[in-house]
Amino acid sequence: MERVRRLQARMSAVGMDAFLVTQHVDLVYFTGSMQAGYAFIPVEGEPVFYVRRSLERAERESAVKVEALTSLRGFRAQLAGGYPSVFGGDEGNAAAKGIRIGTEMDVLPAATYAKLAEAVSGGNTSCSLIDGSSLVRTVRMIKSDWEVGRIEAAAAVVAEALEAALPMIKEGLQELELMARLEYEMRIRGHIGAMRTRSYNMEIMTGMLGSGAAAAVPSAFDGPAGGLGLGPAAPQSTSRKLILRNEPILIDIGCCIDGYVIDQTRTAVIGALPDDLADAYAHSERIIRHAEALMRPGTACDAVYAASLEDAAAAGLGEHFMGFGRNQVKFLGHGIGLEVDEWPVLARGFGNPLEPGMVLAVEPKFTFPGRGVVGIENSYLITDAGCRQLTKSPEGLIIL
Amino acid sequence: MERVRRLQARMSAVGMDAFLVTQHVDLVYFTGSMQAGYAFIPVEGEPVFYVRRSLERAERESAVKVEALTSLRGFRAQLAGGYPSVFGGDEGNAAAKGIRIGTEMDVLPAATYAKLAEAVSGGNTSCSLIDGSSLVRTVRMIKSDWEVGRIEAAAAVVAEALEAALPMIKEGLQELELMARLEYEMRIRGHIGAMRTRSYNMEIMTGMLGSGAAAAVPSAFDGPAGGLGLGPAAPQSTSRKLILRNEPILIDIGCCIDGYVIDQTRTAVIGALPDDLADAYAHSERIIRHAEALMRPGTACDAVYAASLEDAAAAGLGEHFMGFGRNQVKFLGHGIGLEVDEWPVLARGFGNPLEPGMVLAVEPKFTFPGRGVVGIENSYLITDAGCRQLTKSPEGLIIL
Repeated sequence: MERVRRLQARMSAVGMDAFLVTQHVDLVYFTGSMQAGYAFIPVEGEPVFYVRRSLERAERESAVKVEALTSLRGFRAQLAGGYPSVFGGDEGNAAAKGIRIGTEMDVLPAATYAKLAEAVSGGNTSCSLIDGSSLVRTVRMIKSDWEVGRIEAAAAVVAEALEAALPMIKEGLQELELMARLEYEMRIRGHIGAMRTRSYNMEIMTGMLGSGAAAAVPSAFDGPAGGLGLGPAAPQSTSRKLILRNEPILIDIGCCIDGYVIDQTRTAVIGALPDDLADAYAHSERIIRHAEALMRPGTACDAVYAASLEDAAAAGLGEHFMGFGRNQVKFLGHGIGLEVDEWPVLARGFGNPLEPGMVLAVEPKFTFPGRGVVGIENSYLITDAGCRQLTKSPEGLIIL
Repeated sequence: MERVRRLQARMSAVGMDAFLVTQHVDLVYFTGSMQAGYAFIPVEGEPVFYVRRSLERAERESAVKVEALTSLRGFRAQLAGGYPSVFGGDEGNAAAKGIRIGTEMDVLPAATYAKLAEAVSGGNTSCSLIDGSSLVRTVRMIKSDWEVGRIEAAAAVVAEALEAALPMIKEGLQELELMARLEYEMRIRGHIGAMRTRSYNMEIMTGMLGSGAAAAVPSAFDGPAGGLGLGPAAPQSTSRKLILRNEPILIDIGCCIDGYVIDQTRTAVIGALPDDLADAYAHSERIIRHAEALMRPGTACDAVYAASLEDAAAAGLGEHFMGFGRNQVKFLGHGIGLEVDEWPVLARGFGNPLEPGMVLAVEPKFTFPGRGVVGIENSYLITDAGCRQLTKSPEGLIIL
C-alpha cells in the first residue's frame, strides 16, 4: 500500500524502526480494517495487523496480513518472531542496537501506553515506544483520489440535506428541530452518525447550528462559533432557542460517509439581516475568495491565515473575526479527512507549504455578541494548479 | 459538593495529595461545567477549576471556584500559590514531602499526560502525576437522585422514540432508515446527539440496530451483538440491509439527556420467529428476571454474571449467549451514567458488591450466526431493598 510506503519513508528519515498503530481511525487508514488490535509496520517490509476481534472480519477487510493477537503478554514474542530484522533475532542484539517504535501518543491513553510499552519492550529498556503521531498526521494530510471521492460524496450528502431542510425554516422553529431534520437527511443517505475528532475532549456531533444570540455564545469548542447548546453537559452548537426573523442562522454542518467527513457553512435569514451583519457576511465571501486565490502548492499555510486577518482588519471587523474578543480562535481553516481536525491548519506557526492532495475546510466568520454569527465555509482540495472546491451548496446569504 | 467529598475520602485512603481532573465528562461531574481547563481537587479543602475557555461560561456554570488558566507554563506557580498546603509553600518542603497527584490516565492521551506532568511538577521529580482513574470511576458509580432523574428522563425519550418508530417497520425497510427515524425522534426530544464512551476506540453512536443475519455479524465492539455496519470505517450496528419477515430485529438503542445515557433493547419481528429463536428470546426474559431477583445491595457483581451463564447453559444455549463461539463477550451488564461503559460490570473478576445508587444495564442476548440476535436489555437502579427498573418500554417480543 502506498500509504504504508509513505509512512515508512518518514520513519526511515527520523530513524524509527517500526510503528505500532493503535487508534481505530489510523488502523482503517493503514490496513483497510477497523477491527480491534494493533498494526505493526516495520521501517522496511510488510505490516501485520494483530487482531483481537473480530478476526474473521479483519481477514475479510484488511489489505495487510492479519494474525490473531493471543495476549498482550505474548505480544513481544509474537512480534520478535515475525520481525527478526527489527528485534534483532535475540535479546542480545536488540539490546545492543536499541529499538525505536513509534505510536500515536496524541490519542493513546497514558495507562494504555504504559501497558503497551511494557508489552512491546518485554521490559527491555533499549526498546522504546515513542511519539510518532506527527508522522501519521503528516502522511494522512495527502489524500488519494479515492479519499477525495469519499469526501466529495459526503459533500453531496450535506448539500442534499441542506436543500431538503431549508423549506422547513419558519419563524418560531426550534434550532434543535432544524438540526434533527438535517441529521436525519444526512443519516438516511449514509452518514455514519458521528464526525470523528482527534483532539482530547473535542466533540463535534454534526457541527454547529445556531441562530442569533445563541450562536454567538462562546464555548470550549475550538471553533469560530460556539453556540448555546443543550445545557452544561452539551455546551455547544444547537439549543432549544426558537429561530426569529432578521437574525443570522449559522448552518455549519458536516457528515461522515465511508469514514470521510466534509465541513460546510452557510448563513441564512428569515427576512433580512441588519446592514452591518449583511456587510460582514459579504466580507466573509471576499475573504474566502482571497483564500482561494492564495491556495496553491507552495503557499505557506500561515500566509493564508495572515491574509484573512489583514482583510478582516481592513474591513474594520478585526475584533469580530473568528469569534469575538478574547474568545477568538487563531485559525482560518483546518484539514479534513477521516477526522475533522486534521492537518494542515491555516494558522500562525504553520509555515509548511500547501501540497497537492491536501483537503482543507476554510471558514471565515464574524461574531457579534448578543446578535449572531455570519460567515461561510467551503472545503477544498489543493491541486497542482491551485485549489478545487469540494462543497456543493450554492453560495450567498440564503434569504428565506 | 458531595461528589468532591467522596473523591477526597478515597484520595485520603490511598495517600493522594490532590487530583487533577482533565476529561470533559469528569469536569462536568465534579464542577458542573464542561468548559476547557483543569479542575484541581486537593485532598482537603476546596477545588478550583482553572479554565482556558470559555471563562465567562465556566463562571456561570461551575459549582466550584473558577480561575483563568493563563498558560501551562505558569500552571505550577498558579497551583502552588493557591494550594500551599499541597505544594508545601516552597520547593524545599515539597521536595522533602513528595507530592502525589492523581489524574485520569485511562483517558488522558500519553503526550498530553507528559506535558501536564512536566507542567504540574515544574520538573520536580518528587511531584508525580499518577493514575487515579479508578477513584473517579468508583465515585461516579453511585448516582445521586438528580442523576437517576436524568437517566429516567433519557429512558422516557427512548421509550417514546421506539413507540413512534415501530409503526414504520415494514418488510423491505432499510435498517438505516429505521435507525435514522429513531435517532430523529430522540434528538427532537433533547438527545445531545451522541452517547459518550470512556474506552479507547469505542464508539456507540446511538446503539445497535440490526436485523437477521446482519445483527449476528461479529465486530470489534465489546458487546453481545456487533452488526454489519455501513462499511469498514463504520463496522458495527446499522447497515443498509432490508428488514425481512420472520427474522429478529434487535433494537438496542440509547440516548443522552442532560449528559446522562440510557440503554435499552427490545426484539421485534414481522410475522413470527422460528421456534428456536422464539425460545431463546423467552430465555433472555427468564435470565433478566433471575438477575432482577439477585440484584440487591451486597450481591457480588460476578455472582449475577455467573447465574446468567448457568441459566444459559441449562437452556442448552451456552454457545449462543452474549455472542457466538469465540466472539462471545464476557459480561452480562455494565454501569451507565455520563458514559455508557461505566462501573460496575457484571462480569467475572468483579467481586465487588452491588450498592444502592448504582445504575446498570443488563442485557442477556443470544446470537445465531446467519440468522440473528434476540434478547432484552433493561437498566436498573440498585435500591436499599433490591433494584428498580428505569427503562420504560413494554417487554415481550414485539410482533409487527
